[in-house]
Amino acid sequence: MIQAGIIGASGYTGGELIRLLSLHPYVQLETITSRSLAGTAAPEVYGSLRGVCDLEFTSSSVRETAAACDVIFLALPHGVASREITESVLQDTVVIDLGADFRLHDPEIYQQWYRTDHGSPHLLPQAVYGLPELHRAQIASAQLIANPGCYTTASILSLAPLFSRKLIHPASVIIDAKSGVSGAGRTAKTGLMFCECDENFKAYGVASHRHTPEIEQELSLAYGESVQLTFTPHLVPMNRGILTTSYAKPTGGASMEEVRSWYEEFYRDAPFVRILPEGVFPETRWVKGSNYCDIGIAQDSRTRRLIVVAAIDNLVKGASGQAVENMNIRFGLEETVGLTQGTVFPA
Amino acid sequence: MIQAGIIGASGYTGGELIRLLSLHPYVQLETITSRSLAGTAAPEVYGSLRGVCDLEFTSSSVRETAAACDVIFLALPHGVASREITESVLQDTVVIDLGADFRLHDPEIYQQWYRTDHGSPHLLPQAVYGLPELHRAQIASAQLIANPGCYTTASILSLAPLFSRKLIHPASVIIDAKSGVSGAGRTAKTGLMFCECDENFKAYGVASHRHTPEIEQELSLAYGESVQLTFTPHLVPMNRGILTTSYAKPTGGASMEEVRSWYEEFYRDAPFVRILPEGVFPETRWVKGSNYCDIGIAQDSRTRRLIVVAAIDNLVKGASGQAVENMNIRFGLEETVGLTQGTVFPA
Amino acid sequence: MIQAGIIGASGYTGGELIRLLSLHPYVQLETITSRSLAGTAAPEVYGSLRGVCDLEFTSSSVRETAAACDVIFLALPHGVASREITESVLQDTVVIDLGADFRLHDPEIYQQWYRTDHGSPHLLPQAVYGLPELHRAQIASAQLIANPGCYTTASILSLAPLFSRKLIHPASVIIDAKSGVSGAGRTAKTGLMFCECDENFKAYGVASHRHTPEIEQELSLAYGESVQLTFTPHLVPMNRGILTTSYAKPTGGASMEEVRSWYEEFYRDAPFVRILPEGVFPETRWVKGSNYCDIGIAQDSRTRRLIVVAAIDNLVKGASGQAVENMNIRFGLEETVGLTQGTVFPA
Amino acid sequence: MIQAGIIGASGYTGGELIRLLSLHPYVQLETITSRSLAGTAAPEVYGSLRGVCDLEFTSSSVRETAAACDVIFLALPHGVASREITESVLQDTVVIDLGADFRLHDPEIYQQWYRTDHGSPHLLPQAVYGLPELHRAQIASAQLIANPGCYTTASILSLAPLFSRKLIHPASVIIDAKSGVSGAGRTAKTGLMFCECDENFKAYGVASHRHTPEIEQELSLAYGESVQLTFTPHLVPMNRGILTTSYAKPTGGASMEEVRSWYEEFYRDAPFVRILPEGVFPETRWVKGSNYCDIGIAQDSRTRRLIVVAAIDNLVKGASGQAVENMNIRFGLEETVGLTQGTVFPA
Repeated sequence: MIQAGIIGASGYTGGELIRLLSLHPYVQLETITSRSLAGTAAPEVYGSLRGVCDLEFTSSSVRETAAACDVIFLALPHGVASREITESVLQDTVVIDLGADFRLHDPEIYQQWYRTDHGSPHLLPQAVYGLPELHRAQIASAQLIANPGCYTTASILSLAPLFSRKLIHPASVIIDAKSGVSGAGRTAKTGLMFCECDENFKAYGVASHRHTPEIEQELSLAYGESVQLTFTPHLVPMNRGILTTSYAKPTGGASMEEVRSWYEEFYRDAPFVRILPEGVFPETRWVKGSNYCDIGIAQDSRTRRLIVVAAIDNLVKGASGQAVENMNIRFGLEETVGLTQGTVFPA
Repeated sequence: MIQAGIIGASGYTGGELIRLLSLHPYVQLETITSRSLAGTAAPEVYGSLRGVCDLEFTSSSVRETAAACDVIFLALPHGVASREITESVLQDTVVIDLGADFRLHDPEIYQQWYRTDHGSPHLLPQAVYGLPELHRAQIASAQLIANPGCYTTASILSLAPLFSRKLIHPASVIIDAKSGVSGAGRTAKTGLMFCECDENFKAYGVASHRHTPEIEQELSLAYGESVQLTFTPHLVPMNRGILTTSYAKPTGGASMEEVRSWYEEFYRDAPFVRILPEGVFPETRWVKGSNYCDIGIAQDSRTRRLIVVAAIDNLVKGASGQAVENMNIRFGLEETVGLTQGTVFPA
Repeated sequence: MIQAGIIGASGYTGGELIRLLSLHPYVQLETITSRSLAGTAAPEVYGSLRGVCDLEFTSSSVRETAAACDVIFLALPHGVASREITESVLQDTVVIDLGADFRLHDPEIYQQWYRTDHGSPHLLPQAVYGLPELHRAQIASAQLIANPGCYTTASILSLAPLFSRKLIHPASVIIDAKSGVSGAGRTAKTGLMFCECDENFKAYGVASHRHTPEIEQELSLAYGESVQLTFTPHLVPMNRGILTTSYAKPTGGASMEEVRSWYEEFYRDAPFVRILPEGVFPETRWVKGSNYCDIGIAQDSRTRRLIVVAAIDNLVKGASGQAVENMNIRFGLEETVGLTQGTVFPA
Repeated sequence: MIQAGIIGASGYTGGELIRLLSLHPYVQLETITSRSLAGTAAPEVYGSLRGVCDLEFTSSSVRETAAACDVIFLALPHGVASREITESVLQDTVVIDLGADFRLHDPEIYQQWYRTDHGSPHLLPQAVYGLPELHRAQIASAQLIANPGCYTTASILSLAPLFSRKLIHPASVIIDAKSGVSGAGRTAKTGLMFCECDENFKAYGVASHRHTPEIEQELSLAYGESVQLTFTPHLVPMNRGILTTSYAKPTGGASMEEVRSWYEEFYRDAPFVRILPEGVFPETRWVKGSNYCDIGIAQDSRTRRLIVVAAIDNLVKGASGQAVENMNIRFGLEETVGLTQGTVFPA
């Protein structure tokens, strides 16, 4: 059994980790920490856990939890993890960080988008970007895994095949992304109240969202040179789910059959990517609660533009599920173990 | 492995059965039938099943399916099952009927509430009412199990302990029930459209809902004499979940501690009933997607009235999950097998 | 033109007052105050007001606003209004208080339910309970109008005819009430976040909600002696609307035709009460955004229990619309002026 | 008073017309027709109309209604209006058609997208495209007004200023559009049921939606030559509202101040277009129930791409409100009369 701890388990990704790790056949969840909830039993916060996980939240430090666990998951605000993680912590345990601190290779880009200095730039070279579909081999031996952002996961999985074969013009790429409200976290803010989100749809972070450099980093790697694109997030009045609609101008005359085949080949070994049949497009409900990323591909026959639609559950494949997937890979388990429960429909 | 078939798998309870049986470790789902969807693969209807269950819907008859399976689940409109199920079918297979046809022991009461003659009154004596908390022993050897209705499950579990010890006046009992929209099924009707249900709350079937006689039958059995009560259902703009708020006038001076203890004792062997701590009341989100029934109990100190609040997922404990629970009991499996996946939160 | 001011205009009832008073043909909205928003223009907070009301929030005191206005509306937390309103303020202006401070005639009952001393018990005798259907005449000459609570309005309007003629046993009365989330106000709290309310239904304040004594006060007046009842509120995942389902045991043999006729007579002069035809029950969508209270009546033929269902918009008839109605009555306008805009459907 | 009739009043746009025309100070609503609802009183279908509009639906023909009314509004499926409207009808009355039949000037393009021959191509030359912001003068004297589609209205208003001054490359234009469910109409279909839409987000009609040629027709006119663009609609789990996010590559070096000034000048005389301040973007809730179109403009400083976000209520500015606006213009009334009621918030 893998001994696991969750640092900062009071939010939605933390709660989702408790659920997934409690049900995981090879994991013993040892510690769940939360400064604000210390002393409270998990079911008092998440009624669904009554009889499933009766652990109490503690105020254990990262260092203490690391010493007691084989793996720790960090669900902390940006800027905190990079101050808490040290060489010594990494000697004790595998760290899977669900925050942003170790995702960007370049600390200056981090500083530019997050408006704070990076707390441990010397650790960045050993951090592995935890998107299994692109970096499975490195994840398998990483001690510090930077779990991707939610928008990022859907965006990169949508476009990596096109960038990797230079099938599109990078400068033409637009990602129009839509997310359920849980993507914004569990901190009480007026803008996240029921009456402010229900029956409303809006764009936010227009041309300025922090997931942009993360998407560009990974697609630049896939492309072989630095790329820039436009990314616009929107807020959908639903709990969970991200849908991205990506647009790109093709470079050559690859047919849709060739494009589709290439996607299937690209994701041949990826158990959680489902390339949908022609004419079928993803819907967030079909992946809700699951670790799948569904991808549909079309071409606008009039403008020749490629359109790629992808859907994930932002808290599963976009956060906690992918973290467990990374843990599975790192500990030599089958990638899908503990992640096969079906989507509930209607959601 | 138990060979299983689902008759009428195109609706919400059918879809939920596909999900639960596909993931059940001791079940081989052999057949899913639907006249309207025959020839279609399950993932074309439920995108979530892609890679999980790729069976095609067939138009196999009840008789054919019964011959090929150890157990068949019926998800049919009322009036159909009682015409399809025969002695010969029951010799071939165990039948778990999710419809109303075999729930009421008295065919006249059936006729009165469903406005149609019962198709096979001679089979009623062998039908067992499939509420494990009350009839576990009989279910274990039943060939024909009548799975309870959704409102019914929450209502009976809320009140059976009070009736069984005559702690309340039966004539004082009111059940004010609220259900998510999936309880109304998947047949397209104007009143079930998104724009007709969203941002709306209403009562319906006031003093005339068909689950009333079913609740009364079981509570009369618990009480030892015939009882009548008032039951009012309401429609909540959410996909899943039932919450019942039940009111009753206590007969004697039992303290709340005694009442609570009695509930805990009554449900001691029921793995899916959770009696909540004092001052905590059920919320549908905490049971969504799970087979739990959460129950909270209070007393209005000013009027002395007892108030019992219960929550279930109408498609799981209120339908398909309970059907699987019944199958587990009938086939000698642990009652909870295949039913332990946690609730997703936020739902 | 009536010069009007709103004290504490940052919440949902305050916003609704801005909307209604901006569109009112005989009102000049002079001042909107909010300590937290002072200096901000209304459209920056409520984008819908751009071009409709471009006033800035100020930090004017009650005293200053009273001196400049013919009427002031208070949308303040309980305990504040009773400290701000003085004889001198009431000499300057008509006060319509949307909070709880002046609703209960007995300051001890106030103290018991609100856990704070009343700030100005000497003013209570002149406060008029602002439910036009019951107190129209006194409202017409009141200087201090206590606007009823939202649950209270629906509950009292549902039951006053039955109590006034002693058609039911008071001790048998149960009000099972359901509200949209805006009833809980606009202060950011975890429990009011989108992801905590969406796809959820729950009871709260079981046998302990503060609207109980207010309902009892008015129904006791209607009945002629002191009554106690059971009141249970629930939270519905929608923005607006209250639906109450009330149960009562009839005293005598009044037929449903007689009961219905009595309701129609009782509300003959009430332009905002609609008694629905037999077999038709209220739905919150039909009153959303309007000042109507819809009432449907039925009898459970099996248990003889009377069931009264009522629906209002909690922010209109349950708060700001009723406040404008009270203003209309107090200033000698037609009761409906400024309140006739139709409900938008789908809502 | 203008005598008005609504043909096909059973759907959402029909219902919205009843609401708006019933409250319009210069309109007498004479006739509402619906084959399926003939003989039913409006409040039986729309409970909100009780006491507001008590008309009965009739089965009057277009010809009969035309003879009795100054203006008739058609809310019919495509292909029907073009068969019902004749020269003789147009001599009797002003026709405002909310359907698609008279929007496209070229009957071949109509045939290509709607897969049916046009029923009266000879009337197309006199049909005026009823978007007041572009064609106010012609509307004022038109006998046949083709009211624009919902997506179309938001899309064209977003982009017309850019096309009219050739500030962008037409081939670079992408419109990513999102609509509430009422845009799909009131005919009962499985895909429009509450449980199929709630908690879901999806794209549909990818690169093939029928509003595309309508947008292109009007933007081609604005540009001075034929243009083609990519348009992708999505379905949002809310009742009302459209938000479009449009992307375009600028041709020259116009600054954002210049672009914003041009938008303000372009819409100087348009009472229902609100250009939002820098950094503020539209939200559908702020226009819900109103006839406003809110527009926000930004430039991606990294890719130089222009991003225009617009929001309307699909049933008001996107359908029935705009139809009333067209009527106002046609009958010499102030453009805003009957359309000034505020948005309800929370919606």
